[in-house]
Amino acid sequence: MTGEEPALSESKGVLQRTAAYGLFTKPSSFGENMVKTIEWLDDKVIMLDQSRLPLEVVYIECRDYLMVAEGIKKLWIRGAPAIGIAAAMAIALAAQEIEAVDHEGFMGKLEPVFTTLTATRPTAVNIQWAVARIRAFLKARRHEPVATLRKLLIEEALEILKEDIEVNKAIGRWGAQFIHDGDTVLTHCNAGSLATGGYGTATAPMLIAKEQGKKFQVIADETRPVLQGARLTAWELMQADIPVTLITDNSAGALMQRGEISLAIVGTDRTVLNGDVANKIGTYSVAVLCREHGIPFYVAAPMSSIDFSIACGDLIPIEERSADEVTHIFGSCRIAPEGVKVRNLAFDVTPAKFVTAIITEKGAFRPRDIKKLADDQASLEKIRIRE
Amino acid sequence: MTGEEPALSESKGVLQRTAAYGLFTKPSSFGENMVKTIEWLDDKVIMLDQSRLPLEVVYIECRDYLMVAEGIKKLWIRGAPAIGIAAAMAIALAAQEIEAVDHEGFMGKLEPVFTTLTATRPTAVNIQWAVARIRAFLKARRHEPVATLRKLLIEEALEILKEDIEVNKAIGRWGAQFIHDGDTVLTHCNAGSLATGGYGTATAPMLIAKEQGKKFQVIADETRPVLQGARLTAWELMQADIPVTLITDNSAGALMQRGEISLAIVGTDRTVLNGDVANKIGTYSVAVLCREHGIPFYVAAPMSSIDFSIACGDLIPIEERSADEVTHIFGSCRIAPEGVKVRNLAFDVTPAKFVTAIITEKGAFRPRDIKKLADDQASLEKIRIRE
Repeated sequence: MTGEEPALSESKGVLQRTAAYGLFTKPSSFGENMVKTIEWLDDKVIMLDQSRLPLEVVYIECRDYLMVAEGIKKLWIRGAPAIGIAAAMAIALAAQEIEAVDHEGFMGKLEPVFTTLTATRPTAVNIQWAVARIRAFLKARRHEPVATLRKLLIEEALEILKEDIEVNKAIGRWGAQFIHDGDTVLTHCNAGSLATGGYGTATAPMLIAKEQGKKFQVIADETRPVLQGARLTAWELMQADIPVTLITDNSAGALMQRGEISLAIVGTDRTVLNGDVANKIGTYSVAVLCREHGIPFYVAAPMSSIDFSIACGDLIPIEERSADEVTHIFGSCRIAPEGVKVRNLAFDVTPAKFVTAIITEKGAFRPRDIKKLADDQASLEKIRIRE
Repeated sequence: MTGEEPALSESKGVLQRTAAYGLFTKPSSFGENMVKTIEWLDDKVIMLDQSRLPLEVVYIECRDYLMVAEGIKKLWIRGAPAIGIAAAMAIALAAQEIEAVDHEGFMGKLEPVFTTLTATRPTAVNIQWAVARIRAFLKARRHEPVATLRKLLIEEALEILKEDIEVNKAIGRWGAQFIHDGDTVLTHCNAGSLATGGYGTATAPMLIAKEQGKKFQVIADETRPVLQGARLTAWELMQADIPVTLITDNSAGALMQRGEISLAIVGTDRTVLNGDVANKIGTYSVAVLCREHGIPFYVAAPMSSIDFSIACGDLIPIEERSADEVTHIFGSCRIAPEGVKVRNLAFDVTPAKFVTAIITEKGAFRPRDIKKLADDQASLEKIRIRE
């Protein structure tokens, strides 16, 4: 895919293309063993090809913005925060090649870049958000020379990455208080480092708890149909040296019944005003099972994922996806009869009453207090949950 | 696998080898569209190769008992009642080839047959049960000539098949009362015709309700890890012209929350004295979700599967199976990282309090009344549940 790819090397039975990126795979500045899904390195964008995980660990070197766009489109990179960062880096990459005499000429040549990126995944809010942020950033610097703008765009892309990691680390610090020595944490789907700039949302409390020296283990639901738990969460926790056990989604209830789960932490696509939470299909079942067994159920939700405009979960639109995801594994391995009817809800809504706390970068809160976060002046200290 | 197999024919994209067995695929004597997993036809045993379902529909013609034994071993046929029937038919098949002057000589030549069959799946109680029944049957007919014994063994094998179907039809009649026009029935795993001589256990109420002219639909959980729901239940209900929709195990809770499930019917591997029920992993989660949503949860259990010697479900040993079932689909398609730790409980226990009724061939009973069935003289009419 690139003209000059580093040679493939075989390690632990997994193909790796990491030789050229020693720092990348073990980024000490962001926590010892944290997996990184995207990085800016020597004026190139290095992207982990998540679509090949966990069978192959392949890093793709993107030398121009079109290759980053291809990566977003082909799901080499996925996860709302991660693709926002990728878009910002793609713009910075494109800018390095742009020759223009003035700001207007520079913006004119960036327009097709914005258009191409926005078209990669039309419903991805984070790409639109990144483009809008860069536009505003450039507008505020309209009197800077083009050479400076090129440099500033790299800095801004790195700033977006850094802010995302800071949000996640803050979620991690507020959430780590709920993980104790000896605990077993259940998680569902992937709200991990791979979906973000780093640390993930649901995984951030785990990574921070590990940095704090706590000893605990994680159980990852495989998360049918797309198997994000088996493919991504299990893989990235293994990379982070956090003990992880993979189970089928069917097994969570039986393990709770046996007293083998201490708490659950999941991510969320959207949290609404009354504290109801939309997340990957199966999250609701986990929440019901947790309540049946008196197990705390936590949701990690960056403030950006809280939608104060929606009153309750019933009003969240739920996407139904293609039957192929259910009838085939990895798009090729058929597991169901030809012509069978399929119902494939991609998400479900967990009502607030099943949620012990929602963990944001501002603190952990009871679902009923989420509406108070809409007020920037609210005194958070009074409503934060502390163990 | 056989010397002369009927030619393959292509139909609806599925390979079929049914041309030679017109009656077999539509056995009018056992219900119009019921799938049959095994049949005695023209001194041969015809077996549906379930290991290839649903990708291929292949019937295997077994001309000697060794091929039936191979079929049991290689899981061409599975399900406790079905393999008991297969063993009895294998013995009858072997007997046709045995030349002996007296009963002792006849028995002597059957011994290796008994040994071979028992060794195919050492923990399968139904094979041992079938061998013991045939032994006793022959012992009681020790004065019959060998030619008669050969003929009687065929009759006895067919009797075992017929008895199994009668038990299942009785379960179906007692269970069909709970299915009403417009209902959506959820089921988990495969307790269907394929696992039995016919009608299945959990599917029997559905097949009888259909025969009664009721209009309803079924939702089948795919049932990870081995996907019996996707591969077998969806397929056999399609063959029976019962509308069926396949879902991931993760989707059941969300559909209940939306009010789209009317009742659940599942099978059981073992029901114990206090009414606790062991069944395929994930059954317990379905039961908890049913109770949360006020949905009746029924268990179809032939009397032979009730273990009156065990007081409660905690004492049922639960098999843990190989990690490969979770990390690979169909033994070849890897979906999880190399070296990941896996927990693969094959079964779980649903406590009696989650079970609305246990449906046997003697009637439908509250779980707390199961212990009364241990007494053959019990007045069942008083404890039967009727809608």
